[in-house]
Amino acid sequence: MGQPLERFDEAVRHGGNLQQLAARLDCHPGQVLDASASLVPFGPPPSLRRALHRALGSAVFPYPDRGYLALRQAIAQHHGLDAEQVLPGNGAAELFTWAARDAAAWRSLLPVPGFLDYPRALACWDAPFTTLPLRLHWSVPGPLDPVSALAPGLPRRWLEDPQGAAAAAGGSHGRSGGTALWITNPHNPTSQLWGRTPLQRLLRHHDLVIVDEAFLPLVPNGEAHSLIPLLPAHPNLVVIRSLTKQFAMAGLRLGYALGDPARLQRWQGWRDPWPVNGLAAAVAPTLLADQRWQRRVHRWVARELSPLQQQLNALAGITALPSAANYLLLRGERSLLPLRLGLERQRIVLRDCRSFVGLDEHWLRLALCRGGENRRIVRAMGQLLGTIPATAG
Amino acid sequence: MGQPLERFDEAVRHGGNLQQLAARLDCHPGQVLDASASLVPFGPPPSLRRALHRALGSAVFPYPDRGYLALRQAIAQHHGLDAEQVLPGNGAAELFTWAARDAAAWRSLLPVPGFLDYPRALACWDAPFTTLPLRLHWSVPGPLDPVSALAPGLPRRWLEDPQGAAAAAGGSHGRSGGTALWITNPHNPTSQLWGRTPLQRLLRHHDLVIVDEAFLPLVPNGEAHSLIPLLPAHPNLVVIRSLTKQFAMAGLRLGYALGDPARLQRWQGWRDPWPVNGLAAAVAPTLLADQRWQRRVHRWVARELSPLQQQLNALAGITALPSAANYLLLRGERSLLPLRLGLERQRIVLRDCRSFVGLDEHWLRLALCRGGENRRIVRAMGQLLGTIPATAG
Repeated sequence: MGQPLERFDEAVRHGGNLQQLAARLDCHPGQVLDASASLVPFGPPPSLRRALHRALGSAVFPYPDRGYLALRQAIAQHHGLDAEQVLPGNGAAELFTWAARDAAAWRSLLPVPGFLDYPRALACWDAPFTTLPLRLHWSVPGPLDPVSALAPGLPRRWLEDPQGAAAAAGGSHGRSGGTALWITNPHNPTSQLWGRTPLQRLLRHHDLVIVDEAFLPLVPNGEAHSLIPLLPAHPNLVVIRSLTKQFAMAGLRLGYALGDPARLQRWQGWRDPWPVNGLAAAVAPTLLADQRWQRRVHRWVARELSPLQQQLNALAGITALPSAANYLLLRGERSLLPLRLGLERQRIVLRDCRSFVGLDEHWLRLALCRGGENRRIVRAMGQLLGTIPATAG
Repeated sequence: MGQPLERFDEAVRHGGNLQQLAARLDCHPGQVLDASASLVPFGPPPSLRRALHRALGSAVFPYPDRGYLALRQAIAQHHGLDAEQVLPGNGAAELFTWAARDAAAWRSLLPVPGFLDYPRALACWDAPFTTLPLRLHWSVPGPLDPVSALAPGLPRRWLEDPQGAAAAAGGSHGRSGGTALWITNPHNPTSQLWGRTPLQRLLRHHDLVIVDEAFLPLVPNGEAHSLIPLLPAHPNLVVIRSLTKQFAMAGLRLGYALGDPARLQRWQGWRDPWPVNGLAAAVAPTLLADQRWQRRVHRWVARELSPLQQQLNALAGITALPSAANYLLLRGERSLLPLRLGLERQRIVLRDCRSFVGLDEHWLRLALCRGGENRRIVRAMGQLLGTIPATAG
């Protein structure tokens, strides 16, 4: 097994535990500027509020349709697929559990630093995995080639030579000799966009490729790098998406997997019959049809991201790495813990990165906020970086 | 492994797939008298509607508190336990998945006919199980002793002699030589109430005892037979409950497990971080405090159940078995398929029982409805039973 999943205090792990944060800061959750969870900060969209009010009368009492047919049809239509190629889930996170059960037949390969829920899901099935360290600097947000993004001095061809990866890991080569590759596009927490062409080349080297496109709908022109068009020709490919970030509905929970119908039917047979709540199922078709909202989200990222990055890079002692999505990875010359705690005292919350394999207290993740909020964060950081003594790191 | 989980047409399995039923009957779901899913038919309670409207503004956008602390505290307080003894789930069904992962260390024992989601969950972990057939007649609704309710001619002491059970099953004795017993109280689909005293005796014979009390809050004076008071002294006991039936909120999804803190923490580590949606988490404390609703539900069962059973038993060719909860198991002298289809043409839907191990087309399950609806069902059944030709069975 690869590098173990590190365990940290709950507060350090996934951002957005707003209730606990607010309690610690002795204020109302609404008074916290939460730049730790990468949700669209001006949502949920009006169409969601209207759809939810309509659904309250019909979707609370009865059991959800256990086939989720209307929901699957709406998602399929949105992507130009068949309903059989769609499996909705209780957020993307629930689907990682079943992806991991599938992947447990092989050795999983996880680029790190990466999303903590993949090793959680793999550990649930005692599935072997190997971490693939990424280089921690890059000069453009993407589209990048994940093979050349792997750390130098390491077998950079692991992604294209799974046998070598397993041998180098010194362990068994997965239960049946193959590999399952986990890709996040754009990557999290680095915000790197992987290109469709280099990803496509990787598909032939692995028994299963799970591509988590949770943040891709937030990337302007991001769909050009989605692997969804490759699904029909690649039954070993699963694409996982989430509605929670784009539509700012993390509390409502909705994600979906797209892939080979036989595979998704297997996943469906493993899990309980009603994983998606009736309200989420009822509102999703309205959301997917809300193109106006999707354009608004793209305009916001296109307008705010690049200026924020420039302003951050003008600050002393900190680098904002090139970012494709609505979050930025920050590297400090010294420990950024004092900065994070100083911001927290001003009720501004960034994502501590110590729970990510390969990152430490020199790293923070910052979620893109609204214009004025972004400027407030830069201002506060500038003041704090100016006042932090040189011995703080 | 025991008797395999039989596979049937979706429509035959769990009741309450209202959307598909309505589509088949070419009508609106609201026009169907659904006596297949055993939910309180006059819900959800007004307190839920009010709490949901309040929660829409605060519980849709953010991620749920991944510790679900306020929710766990409210459930703990309701039962006189500590928050550490509570694990909320996405309905009881999600929790069976993790109960089964735990149970997979031993051989599971499943009284049958029984709830189909237990073998689904066990199959997910390739967990061995043995079915324990129940006698299909009994003279009082309970409290009964599950040991003496097992079918005669079979090793009725299996529940108290797990070694014998495993030996008789002819298979291995579970991965580590022990047993996990799955109890539903009241049982489903038989509606038998098991007594606390005979259940307590069983606790010392098994490594894990999972008691599904999903319907117990609907049984007048049912709490007298809950095993919740036994939890502190029995770390091998897990009680699973659901709010979906009692509060008529199957679409919202909420259940919880009560048990040993270390065990529940393990379950929590296996699953994804946000299984319970924010709306369900937000409204639950209000519901648990709504004692007026709980009294109303008990009054309804006490008032309607016994007269309905008597009226059904006055019909020719059908027996309603003694029932403790808000559903009745019906046995026909002939096949009840023509009766079920005849009712369906009148938009009255009963639960086909062919998917339950040990039951066939001679059995139906009927959910208790409102007074006038119950009378309508009896009337329609009387007419159909009078008109069905003797050759129909």
